[in-house]
Formats: sequence, C-alpha cells, structure tokens
Amino acid sequence: MKNASKNYKNHFSSENNKRIANVLNRMNDNDYDGMIVTEFNNIFYLSNYNPSSFAICLLKQDPIIFTTAMDKELAEKTSSIPVKDFKSISELKKIFKEENLEKIAIEGTLPIASYNKLKSDKTKNEHWDLITQNFLQKERMIKSKSELKNIKHASEIAHKSFLELDIREKQGEYTDWEIAYELGYLMRSNGAEDESFESIVATDSNTSLPHARCENKKLGNTVLIDWGAKYNGYCSDTTRTIIGDNSKEKEIFDIVLEAYNCAIAGIKTGVKACEIDKIARSIIEEYGYGDKFIHSTGHSIGLDVHENPSISKKDETLLEENMVITIEPGIYLEGEFGVRIEDTIIVGKNKGEIIGNLPYDI
Amino acid sequence: MKNASKNYKNHFSSENNKRIANVLNRMNDNDYDGMIVTEFNNIFYLSNYNPSSFAICLLKQDPIIFTTAMDKELAEKTSSIPVKDFKSISELKKIFKEENLEKIAIEGTLPIASYNKLKSDKTKNEHWDLITQNFLQKERMIKSKSELKNIKHASEIAHKSFLELDIREKQGEYTDWEIAYELGYLMRSNGAEDESFESIVATDSNTSLPHARCENKKLGNTVLIDWGAKYNGYCSDTTRTIIGDNSKEKEIFDIVLEAYNCAIAGIKTGVKACEIDKIARSIIEEYGYGDKFIHSTGHSIGLDVHENPSISKKDETLLEENMVITIEPGIYLEGEFGVRIEDTIIVGKNKGEIIGNLPYDI
Repeated sequence: MKNASKNYKNHFSSENNKRIANVLNRMNDNDYDGMIVTEFNNIFYLSNYNPSSFAICLLKQDPIIFTTAMDKELAEKTSSIPVKDFKSISELKKIFKEENLEKIAIEGTLPIASYNKLKSDKTKNEHWDLITQNFLQKERMIKSKSELKNIKHASEIAHKSFLELDIREKQGEYTDWEIAYELGYLMRSNGAEDESFESIVATDSNTSLPHARCENKKLGNTVLIDWGAKYNGYCSDTTRTIIGDNSKEKEIFDIVLEAYNCAIAGIKTGVKACEIDKIARSIIEEYGYGDKFIHSTGHSIGLDVHENPSISKKDETLLEENMVITIEPGIYLEGEFGVRIEDTIIVGKNKGEIIGNLPYDI
Repeated sequence: MKNASKNYKNHFSSENNKRIANVLNRMNDNDYDGMIVTEFNNIFYLSNYNPSSFAICLLKQDPIIFTTAMDKELAEKTSSIPVKDFKSISELKKIFKEENLEKIAIEGTLPIASYNKLKSDKTKNEHWDLITQNFLQKERMIKSKSELKNIKHASEIAHKSFLELDIREKQGEYTDWEIAYELGYLMRSNGAEDESFESIVATDSNTSLPHARCENKKLGNTVLIDWGAKYNGYCSDTTRTIIGDNSKEKEIFDIVLEAYNCAIAGIKTGVKACEIDKIARSIIEEYGYGDKFIHSTGHSIGLDVHENPSISKKDETLLEENMVITIEPGIYLEGEFGVRIEDTIIVGKNKGEIIGNLPYDI
C-alpha cells in the first residue's frame, strides 16, 4: 500500500475502525493497494452497515462504501465508513486508475460476472490485478470480547427457547414445521433478531438426512432438531436428537456422544482443526460406522453460520484462542434414523469452553 | 457440441428432460460442449433435485450431477439426472479432458474461487475455455403451464393468508415481526412449503425503507407489507400499503396506484421491459416524485424471487408470452412514510393478467 501510515490504529477508535485497521495491516504486509468487499457480512463487520440490497466497499486507507438509492437511508444511518452513491462500475474503475491502485484484493465469493466487469483492460491503459485473498476470513477467525458476548447471548436465547418449546410434550401431536415455527417464534420473543438458518426439524426416517427439510410430518419417537438464534448479527448453532426406546438407537446415540465428548476434550490452542475431526471420526470408525458419518465434525461460526476454519479432514489450520467452533458428529442410517449432537465451543489455551449447558438427553 | 443428436427431445419425456433438451439445443447452437451448473435452482429446474448442501451438474448430452455423501440420499431419491459422488475438482477436470470438452459454459454467479479451480492449465495440456453464458436464465424466462400453475397457487396461498391475518384488527396491538411471523405461519398452514423471502413488515417512518427490517415496533397507522409464498419451488410476491388518514398519504397512494395501473395496462408481447418501467416512472415524475421512486418498477419471478428480465431503465428485453413479472412502483419520503403496491403479472399476447384479485385498499 502506497504512502500508508505504519500505524492505522491511531486514526481509529471504535471496534469497526480497529477491524479496518487490522485488515489494512494485512493488506499492507502483502503490498495490496486496495480491496473490493462485497460480502454483506464483511461490509457489516467493517462498517456496522448491514446492506439490504446492494453495496460495494472499496477498502483502502480512506475506505468508501458505494450503495444505491434503495439502501442509502439505511447506510447513512448505520455506516462508520463514508457512503457514496453507486453509479457504475466504470466510476469504480476510474478510482482504481486515479489512485494508482495496482494490486487489489477480492473475495473468493465474488461472482465471475462481477469479476469480468471489474478486471482491467490493458488496451485502455488499465493496470490493476484482482487477486483472491482471504484477509477478512482470517481477521474474522478470532473473536473479540464483544463478539463472544453476542454469540453467547445468541446461544442463550436459542437454548432457553428450546426448553420453553417442551418438545417431549409435542411428540405425536405437532408436525415438523409447526415445531420449527414455534421455536422461531420463541427465539424472537426471547430477543433474537432472526434465526441463524432455517431450523431443521426431522422425525423418524427423515433424521437420516443431515439437512432434512420439513415435510408436514407428525413428530414420532425419533426427533432431530438443529437450530440457532441470531443476536446483533451473530449466530448460534445447536443440535439435539431425541431417540426412540430401542437398543439400536441407544447404541448409536452413545457412540455419537462419545465422539462429541472426546472431540471437545481435544480442543486447545495449537491443535490442528483436522486433528479434532480425526478424534471424532476415529471413534465412530472404531464402532464400524465410519461410512455413516457423512460430514465434517464441525465449522467455525460468527456472523456467518459457516466460517473458517472448518473442523474437517483436510483443514490444517491451527486452533487459536477465541476461535468459536461447532462440534457436531453424527451417524446416519439411511431408511432407519440418524443421530447428531452439536454444541458451540470457544477455543481456550488449554481447553474448549462449551457455550451453555443444555442437556443431551432431552 | 460434438456428435450431438439433432433432436434431443426424442430421448426425453418428463418436463425436466424437455428443459435439459432445450438448454442442450441452446448450447449446441452456440457450439458449447458442456455447461457447469451450480445454482441450486438451476439444478432443481433441470433435474428436480433441490440440493441442500453442495452439488455440481455437468450438463452435456449425458448429464451428471455430482454431490457429496451428505446430499446423496436426497439426490438419488429425487434427481432425474444420474448422480455420482463428488470426489474432487480434478476428477471433474479429468472428464473435461477425456471427453474433449473445449468450450464450456458457466453461470455468471460462479464464485471466482471456484472459477480459478476449474479453469484449464495450459502447462498441463488442458485446453478448455470457461465462458459465462445465461442459457439457463434465458430458458427460465418463459414459464410452462405447470410453472404458471405453481406461481398462481403460491399467490393464492399468499393472498388467502394475508386476508386471514386481518391486519386492520392488529394495528396498535401487534409488532412488525409478530405480523411477519403470523403471516408466515398462515402461509404454511395453507400449504406453502416456505416463504419466498423474509416478509417485510414496516410501519410509520420505517415504510420509507424499501427493504425495511423488523424492529419490534408496534404497527401504527401506516403499514407496508411485502410478502410471498413458495409452492413446489415457485415464488409469489405481493405488496400492500395501509395508509394513515391524512391527505399527504392519500395523495401519494393515488399516484403509486396510477403508476401501477398504467404500467400493467402497457404490458403485452413485444414491448421492451424498460418501456414498462418508463410508463410507471414518468407518471411518478410528472407528480414531482421521480427522485423518490428509488428502485426498478419490477422483476421477473419464478423459482427465484428475482429473475430476468428486470423491469428497469436499462433492460431492453422484449416481453414474451408467459413471462411472469412483478409491477411494484413506490414512493419513499425519508423520515415520513413510503407507499408501494405490487402484484405479479403473466405477460399475454395483448395484455397482462394480474394474478389474484387482492384489494389495494386494505
């Protein structure tokens, strides 16, 4: 970055501005002159403005957010970054040219159609390179005190609402979507601004689909619920499974709980994400159900439900203090049933801290 | 496309297969050897399988859908296209190579990170080009009889549920999100599988934000509701505004209704989308509120809430029979109030057919 101050932090005060300074430092360390930010949650993370329709943040020492008339009122009320009217892509390219931005970071999620519009045309004397970088993903991995507070509060709302739902009383009476809907209502009544994602409420043989959709099916003996609340933009994510009164379901439940407990016991600073996955996976494999554990052991969570690192076979990221991850092993027996147990964990120096204390045996 | 049969339709029977044949014909006409399809609604449109986590369709004369273990059960139960396990991007690239695919279409929404993984590496003797094409967008513009039926049914559910909500009785009593939530509950009770999008329920000065978010605010005199139901994957989209008992709100309401009526009166086959936008915009401009109509007049709708063409200043697409579009002019007075009226219209040869007959004056 050209002519950039060595210490951005002096210029900023609020948490948003500290975040901007940190990302600018990452850019500076890698000789980037600017970054184009289009993911809504990245824009929110940097500016406190949560776009409703369209926004582009051009991140540089004096960042700008471009938005359209439809979002202008919202952006001006909430953004810590100055807001301008978005007129056209060529106006943006004009800034690249005028300010001599040569090495510009982009997010990996940028659609190819947008990339094609933004890339330089050498025949027009345009000389910037757009390079995929995960500066913001990396910055968002470690949660601040206020972020941890928000995630904890989201989880608290989600757990309280789940207990109020009293699901045991509803088996045989209510259908899957009615339960999902009541849980959503309770979470909002308890202060959630939204659900983190569409709640999964699956019953009986549907529980073997990890992402089962509601089918207007009455709750039977086996019920899997995966739900979360959103608070100040931050997500919670929890799964519980109610099992039927038979030895097969009890056997599977106990294996999943063992995998869950051991994976959590393995969490501490400096361990690779894939090692945590391996702990859970090895236990399920030992019992002969390795091929029935058909997803990763977990994922990071924050403003998005799925963030980096993932707790999966291939992710070699070292866990660091104040990362927030889910641990959610599962076993899925097609045509029969599935069991998953999930909680959200704060990574600590020597151990993981499970958020909340919702019983496993509902 | 190499060695492709001239008439794909012979090989297929169901509606999904006709759609595949139509897209293959578009590809064939433009000398494409294959297409990578990753948008979930495009995969659903082609195969009847609605992915829940991850899927790639490689569309060619013998199309394949690749998915992971997590979605396998769902995909195998629902897809008309053969399903294989997704192992790695390199396996996909191996197919490009083995089958000599040279000109491969991609969607404009493909993330740049995925594009970078899929593009050819000339040093490895890889010779395909990935080119953004809107074959599926174009194919999806004209709705079939069954698609029209689904959109009509979704609208019917949405309108019936809105009337059951009896919103006039709830002003001063209920908050914005409670109304949104009850409307969602009613739509599901009436057979919707989901909402088309998060309902907008705004009251008083919040109505000046076209995409207002719920704020736990009690409904006042002015209430704007924008909502939709989803049925068999297809969306509805309607907006009504309840105005307060004062001349300013009445004036604005009448202008918006005039713009709405005139825009709809202009709809017929062969008219450009931008001409319909111009009709609505000119009326609002004549009354001096041009700068307060801060969005497009409408958009196409189907499996996605927003499809192509848009009914906007710049979209020169000619309207064709059985396109389905919304008409939704609005005037937004910051700090005061906003009015929007919206319905979904089927384009006919000589006129537009408004779906449903929900009163404007609630």
